[in-house]
Amino acid sequence: MSRLITPSSAYPGLRIDGARLSRRIARLAEIGAIEGDGVCRLALSDTDREARNLVCGWMRDLGLSVTIDRIGNVVGIRDGQPELAPVMTGSHIDTVATGGRFDGSLGVLAGLEVIETLNDAGIDTRHPLAVGFFTNEEGARFAPDMLGSGVHQGALDLEEMLAVTDINGCILGAELQRIGYAGDTEVNRLRAHCYVELHVEQGPVLEQEGFAIGAVTGVQGISWSEYRITGTSNHAGTTPMHLRHDAGYLAAAISTEARNLAKTMGGSQVATVGMIRLLPNLVNVIPSEALLTLDLRNTDESLLREAERHMEAFIRQAAAREGVLVSNRKLARFEPVAFDGDMIGLVEQTAERMGLTCRRMPSGAGHDAQMFAPNCPTAMVFVPSRHGISHNVTEYTSPEALAAGANVLLHVLLNRAI
Amino acid sequence: MSRLITPSSAYPGLRIDGARLSRRIARLAEIGAIEGDGVCRLALSDTDREARNLVCGWMRDLGLSVTIDRIGNVVGIRDGQPELAPVMTGSHIDTVATGGRFDGSLGVLAGLEVIETLNDAGIDTRHPLAVGFFTNEEGARFAPDMLGSGVHQGALDLEEMLAVTDINGCILGAELQRIGYAGDTEVNRLRAHCYVELHVEQGPVLEQEGFAIGAVTGVQGISWSEYRITGTSNHAGTTPMHLRHDAGYLAAAISTEARNLAKTMGGSQVATVGMIRLLPNLVNVIPSEALLTLDLRNTDESLLREAERHMEAFIRQAAAREGVLVSNRKLARFEPVAFDGDMIGLVEQTAERMGLTCRRMPSGAGHDAQMFAPNCPTAMVFVPSRHGISHNVTEYTSPEALAAGANVLLHVLLNRAI
Repeated sequence: MSRLITPSSAYPGLRIDGARLSRRIARLAEIGAIEGDGVCRLALSDTDREARNLVCGWMRDLGLSVTIDRIGNVVGIRDGQPELAPVMTGSHIDTVATGGRFDGSLGVLAGLEVIETLNDAGIDTRHPLAVGFFTNEEGARFAPDMLGSGVHQGALDLEEMLAVTDINGCILGAELQRIGYAGDTEVNRLRAHCYVELHVEQGPVLEQEGFAIGAVTGVQGISWSEYRITGTSNHAGTTPMHLRHDAGYLAAAISTEARNLAKTMGGSQVATVGMIRLLPNLVNVIPSEALLTLDLRNTDESLLREAERHMEAFIRQAAAREGVLVSNRKLARFEPVAFDGDMIGLVEQTAERMGLTCRRMPSGAGHDAQMFAPNCPTAMVFVPSRHGISHNVTEYTSPEALAAGANVLLHVLLNRAI
Repeated sequence: MSRLITPSSAYPGLRIDGARLSRRIARLAEIGAIEGDGVCRLALSDTDREARNLVCGWMRDLGLSVTIDRIGNVVGIRDGQPELAPVMTGSHIDTVATGGRFDGSLGVLAGLEVIETLNDAGIDTRHPLAVGFFTNEEGARFAPDMLGSGVHQGALDLEEMLAVTDINGCILGAELQRIGYAGDTEVNRLRAHCYVELHVEQGPVLEQEGFAIGAVTGVQGISWSEYRITGTSNHAGTTPMHLRHDAGYLAAAISTEARNLAKTMGGSQVATVGMIRLLPNLVNVIPSEALLTLDLRNTDESLLREAERHMEAFIRQAAAREGVLVSNRKLARFEPVAFDGDMIGLVEQTAERMGLTCRRMPSGAGHDAQMFAPNCPTAMVFVPSRHGISHNVTEYTSPEALAAGANVLLHVLLNRAI
């Protein structure tokens, strides 16, 4: 059904205004600003309301029709032929408690910058263009993350998500009402013609390898497990090695085996033991208990399952050898998401046509785009993150790199919309 | 100079009163009793004063001359030929905060039981017999541990130790005054003819291998190090394995290498990572910082040094590979203490003559006896600890096993004193 996709050559010289984009990013970053150029703007907080009001104002100034849906997602639409599905972009404006100014905001404000560029150039498109920002992408206040886009695309149930509470017992639906963003647009209705999201990489690959643009091939599958190990607390001096049931040793062995696994499997497989807690956690006492988490990710579901099976078998055998008990709990499990091959190719060719070096890469983090992927051709554009740092006030991407990403977004959207 | 030592056969049928010993242990355990049959009797606390008063009363009841020295050590002496050095036994009556009723108390009260047995039988000895209890053996309130016996035998400086403070800033010397145990007997004067201490094993070896008595060959050397590892916090999904500087992984690698080291070296070498703390300690964040402790012990100083060197080299190389910084701090370092060969043989032969199975073994924990070892022939007698558990309210040794140990103590002391 879809037209043959080739890089747009309709307006090959068209470029967004990088300074204007950076001004909007700086202005939005004033809301919830924290020390060190960071931002604290938890979903549905007062600062989120203020940020939403600012972005909605900009949308209206640009002539977009603004809709707010029942889970608080905001979508601004620029007219095209009304019978055609909109070509869509967007991201989120909520942040983690000590976040940066680019994560999420870039994708939303680059969308507005694309709109303003087209407005200024007087370019109309056949397909409407839609720019959205989605509620609670970070999951820092309400679980799960990508909550708004999940409801928007029908992966999550509206009523269930309205009833979600934060750590203080505040109900999401009530917080939406409180900040005035409980809209009446129905969810799980809008099916985009395609969806493209610009985001900072949040990892070090582009910077390390010297690429300007990442053409994101999909989102890694995620497997989070928590292990509780019960051994026997004993004297570190008087207990011979062969009589130990050391919960701390088993935790360490799981961590080093996770590293071995990732090295042996290679490819996109990553494995992290980020949390270890020992009891009683004293220099001269063999730990009786250990709590640890294991984070496994792979872009390929069968490989991710293989990694899970390998670790389960290792832990079972090592626990038996050490004489400790292990119970486990799945904290999260998402299958990998593959983006659309044509869309990935379009991002890549668009970047190269503009003289921007580009690398195909998976996303290690979750994004709103993955909620669109089952329902429409979807892709993402990454720009480098300095030192690979994100979810941190020191998150940084240069204005030039931001503009490069926004120009790729412009021409990808234009290609699909015109 | 010393006589040929052979097991005593002067009173081969003489036995202590096990029920009387157990009654004293139960009575002493009432002071500072905590739930689950445990005891909390921190050094120089009000409960320590009460326990000291009780034991001093028993000493006087048994006709001992009681002396209190300037660091609060209490020694009760039963007359012998005044020109001869006393044959000495003893231990401590302070406990850790959640201690058992046998650790320390057994050695002191078994000493009193030996005295009472000799009194009842009307047996005089050439050498005076001395029973001591030493201040702050556990180190649970004041550091270092074995403080009183260390000052008693000249290994630690009196004035320095009087100035030591606890975690609340209380000064040891002032606490001694407060509880009425700042004595005037000079320290570092009493040189015993020999020293023998009965103690619970605090480890599982005797129980596991079915021995009634341990003839302790010495105390393991101890090396405690603390490592602070500084890596880079990053996203567990977006950071490729080869770009990680994972402080948590290095902590785990040190723990598993410590286990490998102990297995490879064998013998008495033990190695424990009892404490690990990670920052930020979250499931999806590569740890930026790790703090861990490494406890290495060996009865042989050259092997202990070899273990230290091996771990240092491993940590240096692994840190370089991972791209993390490691700083370290020595928390404690004691050379191994070897007990006297003749005395060890005497313990062994005494046990066997009474039909008690006996095994030579090192002590993994520190004891007051090790402070005497440089100055006089020294040995220790161990009795089994159920499940190897100590420093715990569930610490337990059966009345029969306690009596067996006390009988060995009786005949070893008698052999040397008569």
